[in-house]
Amino acid sequence: MHFISEISSGGVSQRGFTVDGVPGVLWQPDGLPHAGGVNREGLHGAGLHGAGLHGAGLHSEGRHAGRPLVLLGHGGGGDKLRMAEQARRCVARYGFAAVALDAPGHGERPRTAQDERFVTEIAELLAARRPISAWVARHTAALAERAVPEWVAVLDALGEAGEDFGPVGFWGLSLGSVVGIPLAAAEPRIAAAVFGLAGHAAQTEAAARVNVPMEFVLQWDDELVPREGALALFGAFGSREKTLHANPGGHVEVPEFQLAASERFLARHLAQHLGRDLDITE
Amino acid sequence: MHFISEISSGGVSQRGFTVDGVPGVLWQPDGLPHAGGVNREGLHGAGLHGAGLHGAGLHSEGRHAGRPLVLLGHGGGGDKLRMAEQARRCVARYGFAAVALDAPGHGERPRTAQDERFVTEIAELLAARRPISAWVARHTAALAERAVPEWVAVLDALGEAGEDFGPVGFWGLSLGSVVGIPLAAAEPRIAAAVFGLAGHAAQTEAAARVNVPMEFVLQWDDELVPREGALALFGAFGSREKTLHANPGGHVEVPEFQLAASERFLARHLAQHLGRDLDITE
Repeated sequence: MHFISEISSGGVSQRGFTVDGVPGVLWQPDGLPHAGGVNREGLHGAGLHGAGLHGAGLHSEGRHAGRPLVLLGHGGGGDKLRMAEQARRCVARYGFAAVALDAPGHGERPRTAQDERFVTEIAELLAARRPISAWVARHTAALAERAVPEWVAVLDALGEAGEDFGPVGFWGLSLGSVVGIPLAAAEPRIAAAVFGLAGHAAQTEAAARVNVPMEFVLQWDDELVPREGALALFGAFGSREKTLHANPGGHVEVPEFQLAASERFLARHLAQHLGRDLDITE
Repeated sequence: MHFISEISSGGVSQRGFTVDGVPGVLWQPDGLPHAGGVNREGLHGAGLHGAGLHGAGLHSEGRHAGRPLVLLGHGGGGDKLRMAEQARRCVARYGFAAVALDAPGHGERPRTAQDERFVTEIAELLAARRPISAWVARHTAALAERAVPEWVAVLDALGEAGEDFGPVGFWGLSLGSVVGIPLAAAEPRIAAAVFGLAGHAAQTEAAARVNVPMEFVLQWDDELVPREGALALFGAFGSREKTLHANPGGHVEVPEFQLAASERFLARHLAQHLGRDLDITE
C-alpha cells in the first residue's frame, strides 16, 4: 500500500494511495498520527509494502483502534473522487474512515478493449432506444469479477499498514452494487451494506448469500433498472434485517434525504458492532 | 371539546377528551398552562364548547404557539391508548403534541350491528382460510366514511379550545391509513403523513389527491395486504415527495427502527413548516 498524496480540509484528511496498481483514496479525521501523510517509498514507486505507515507504529498506539470503515463504491462512469462528499460526511458526522477505489476501466485506470467496446456499444444502443439493462448487467458483471478481489486486497493492505479499523460497511449504488453484492457475499469483514439502483437476475445468487443488515435504495421511475427486477433482487437478499427505500424519480435522482438516511443506517449498524449506541435511528 | 381526565408522567401530560361523543386523548409536554387540566363543565357533561380552555387565555399568551400536532390513527382492533407509547415519543423527543381517537366501533365506542357482523364474518373467513382483503377493504372503507369527519371536528375543536397548534402530521397504518388517506386528501391542515400496511384499489382515488410529503410503510410478507396492491397504492399517491420503506415480516411485525424512522420523517417535515431545521435526517 503506497500513500502518494495528502490534502486536508475541514477536519478531514484525504490521502491518495495505490494497492497493486489500483488507485484509491482514504478519508479519515484530520490530525491522526501517521507517517507524515505521504509514504515516501510510495511516492517514489519502489517502497516496501506499507512500510511507511507500519514504521509509525500506529497499531500499537491504538489511537484510532476499531474506527469503523465505510467502503464507497462509485457508479458506472464515476470514479473514486465522486465519493468525496459522502466520504467527508462519514468522517465529519460519525468519526468513521472511508475509502473509495477507481473501478476497472474508470477514473485514472486504463480502459481495456472490452471497456472501450462497452462505451461505444452502449451509446449505440441508447441512440437506437433499445433496452440496455441486459447488456449493462453483462458488462458490469465482468467488471465486478475484476473489482471484488481488488477491494479484498485493499482491506488486507489497510490491515497490514497498521490502520486498526473496526467494523466495515459498504455503500454502493448501481455499478457500486454490482461490485458490492458479490463482495459482501464473499467478505466476512463487511458487517452492513447499502445497495440499490440494481436488479438483474445475474445478481440474485450473490444477494442470497449476503446475510448482514442491508438497506436497498430503489428509484421508482428508474429508466435503467426495471422496477420488477429491483424488487425481486431486494426479495432475494439473505439478510434477516433488510429494508427497502423507494423514492420517485430516475436513476440519478436519489434524493438528498435518502443519502443521509443510508449513511445513518450504516452508522447505526457499525456503532452496534462496537457495542456502542450512537442514539441513531433512521 | 370536553376534557375529562388528566394524568402526567415523565414530562408528558395525557388528557382524555370527547368531541361530539367521540373519545380521544391529547398528549402534550407537561407543565403547559391550561385550565387545570380537567374542564369541569366537560366532567359534568354539560359545559360550553371548550369554555374551560378558552377561559385560560392560552391562545393570547402564545406559550406553545405553533406546536406541531401529530394525529395518530390506530389499526383495526386497536384503540386510542394503543398509540400512547408513540405519542409519548412525539412529545418527549420532538416537543410535539399528539392526539388519538377511538375509531368507530373501537375502544370505548359502541359497536353497531354492522361492526358486530364484521367481527363475526371476518372470523369465519379466517377460519375457512378464505381471502379477506376485499372484505376488510369494504368494511374499513365504511368505517373511514364515519371517521374522517370526526378527525376534522377534533381539529376544529382543538383550534376553538385555544390550543394554538402549528403544522399537523398524520401517522396511521392499516385501518389508520384507510381512514388517514381520505382525511389527508380532504384536510388542508395536514402537512405530512405516514401511511402503510394498506393497498386496496378502493384507496387509490383518495391517494391520488394526497399531495403532501408522505412515507409509506410496507411489510414484505404481509399476510393481509397483497404486496402488489401495496406497491400500486404507493405509486398512486399524488405527493411529489413520497418514500416507500419496506421490511421483511408480517402485518404486525413492523420493526422498531421503522417506527422511529417514520416519526423522524414527520418531525423533519413539520419542523420545516415552522421554518426550522431540526437537523433531522432519516
